Amino acid sequence: MASTQIRFGILGCASIVRKLARAIALAPTATITALGSRSLEKAKKFAADNNFPAETKVYGSYDAVLDDADVDAVYIPLPTSLHVRWVIAAAEKKKHVLLEKPVALNVPEFDRIVQACESAGVQLMDGTMWMHHPRTAKMREFLSDSERFGQLKSVHTVFTFAVDPDFLANDIRVKPDLDALGALGDVGWYCVRAILFAADYELPKIVTALRDPVLNEAGVILSCGASLKWEDGKVATFQCSYLSHLTMDLTAIGTRGTLHVHDFAGPFQEDVALFSASSNAGFNDLLTGWVPSPSVHTVMTKLPQEVLMVKEFSSLVASIQSGAKPETKWPTLSRKTQLILDAVKASIEKGFEPVEVSP
Amino acid sequence: MASTQIRFGILGCASIVRKLARAIALAPTATITALGSRSLEKAKKFAADNNFPAETKVYGSYDAVLDDADVDAVYIPLPTSLHVRWVIAAAEKKKHVLLEKPVALNVPEFDRIVQACESAGVQLMDGTMWMHHPRTAKMREFLSDSERFGQLKSVHTVFTFAVDPDFLANDIRVKPDLDALGALGDVGWYCVRAILFAADYELPKIVTALRDPVLNEAGVILSCGASLKWEDGKVATFQCSYLSHLTMDLTAIGTRGTLHVHDFAGPFQEDVALFSASSNAGFNDLLTGWVPSPSVHTVMTKLPQEVLMVKEFSSLVASIQSGAKPETKWPTLSRKTQLILDAVKASIEKGFEPVEVSP
Repeated sequence: MASTQIRFGILGCASIVRKLARAIALAPTATITALGSRSLEKAKKFAADNNFPAETKVYGSYDAVLDDADVDAVYIPLPTSLHVRWVIAAAEKKKHVLLEKPVALNVPEFDRIVQACESAGVQLMDGTMWMHHPRTAKMREFLSDSERFGQLKSVHTVFTFAVDPDFLANDIRVKPDLDALGALGDVGWYCVRAILFAADYELPKIVTALRDPVLNEAGVILSCGASLKWEDGKVATFQCSYLSHLTMDLTAIGTRGTLHVHDFAGPFQEDVALFSASSNAGFNDLLTGWVPSPSVHTVMTKLPQEVLMVKEFSSLVASIQSGAKPETKWPTLSRKTQLILDAVKASIEKGFEPVEVSP
Repeated sequence: MASTQIRFGILGCASIVRKLARAIALAPTATITALGSRSLEKAKKFAADNNFPAETKVYGSYDAVLDDADVDAVYIPLPTSLHVRWVIAAAEKKKHVLLEKPVALNVPEFDRIVQACESAGVQLMDGTMWMHHPRTAKMREFLSDSERFGQLKSVHTVFTFAVDPDFLANDIRVKPDLDALGALGDVGWYCVRAILFAADYELPKIVTALRDPVLNEAGVILSCGASLKWEDGKVATFQCSYLSHLTMDLTAIGTRGTLHVHDFAGPFQEDVALFSASSNAGFNDLLTGWVPSPSVHTVMTKLPQEVLMVKEFSSLVASIQSGAKPETKWPTLSRKTQLILDAVKASIEKGFEPVEVSP
């Protein structure tokens, strides 16, 4: 094993682990060292079924992974309600943490997570994969261009997918004791992150939930939306849902340009991703067509976005092992995203009143 | 002149008249007979500059057009505050009316317009051109398909364009005495109509303005948004603005499919228009791609949408001349659209409280 390879332990056998295990295997700077589940049998079967490396150490507890001196970093895809406990436990064992979203049930919980990681000097990054796709950097170039895009005026995002009755009855994402934020914490997380991305991570001042949330019997959000407003007047809306067909839109409108993406959080294909950009468009003389028409930008990537995420995380961990400090950018983005989720939830609970976002 | 040709009089020399005059010229069933302006000189220059037929009668008043026995129908692109007066005057002279949007400043005004046209037995149709594009019928096929689209869950529309300082200072669309609804009546009209289109013209129950309108010093809306909710739980949002780059989006999400259009009210090109449709899409096994990807549908049209509008209107007029009754579908759609505009305006005025839509 090359010394530059970061050794991952994985806590749990969630379905998303199959994607991440492949990503760790594909990342040139990372390797899977250990997998832990509350059931040793389940972990063994999961590792065998999903082509984990033969040398992977398989444990019947999460603690055993954290106690393994060969583990540099852990990937935590556990239910959100368990994040505080297991990130703190990992940090105390000096394990760097790649944490699934939503990072916590609320900001005070996340602040405990950040505090634990800071005290231990370990890296914390959330699992928002699309942040690491090269398309995201290309979109940033467009959004930052004062000639092609101008000043941001509004952002509209949608992330919905239609779940089946089994999901509605049994998935952890609809259980109040496991993932109490439901669709807001799951797909709404991406909507909010995309809005913040378009706003260059400037926080809005006011968040107002739309009067249309659907909750299940236990009070977990299955569908909701919100509008956001910044001090300079720019606005955003989003809609997230478990009850509508798979849709994943980011629309950002500036004074001079418009960006459209229809698969922002997970591209239609692994190796190529598109976005549409329109700049300085107007109608022709007789108002019978647009001049110019939008242009489609294609961004290739040899490594899928989740592999690039693992690579970036591993690179930060390697730097820390060489004496650098943890990168604060990532937990800062996580916290801003969580702040908005908290505000949406508060607005719903307050009867759709506007809620001030206080950083 | 063939007897099937409907003879149009035009009231005023608004800039949109250039587009409509061309449409009337291109429509096989219509011809321009008269143009009236408050200034005869202006009307003469306008007719000459815009290649009106040599035989066009040019008048120095609107009344003269209405008094012309050779005029079957009038196109009224006057400021909204003048609609009641001139539609009623036209109807009294038994002229059929093609009326620019917004049809009125509010529903009570529009009801007077409808009453006048009904009493006179003349056709009334608003100038929402994209209703007549063959793409619209193709999109309806998709939205009506229980297998490909399913039940509508949410609709999101945007129509914005960035005006220049001269527009903000002088255009009739920002003047409280001329077009008091501002951007809401102008581009918001299209957003609302597209939402209604997607909902198969079922009216929502509740309309709530978003807390982000921008008004000019005279109180005219330059930018605003709203959320709509139907009794069955489906929802919609729209954003309209004079302060953001040209953007024209319709996104409709059903239980089994998603529709995307980025030029719904006026296609990028005259002769071909696209929409994107996605059906029964999900993630692949490892959540690394979509199966299937969306498909792009291309709809060709020999005649531009505004010509098809004139053709449809003329055909209805010809039927009435042969003894048929006026088609009530078009004023019904106009009224539903106006009802929502009124509700948005009322919600803004009530401090963004939800407003019930009472047909």
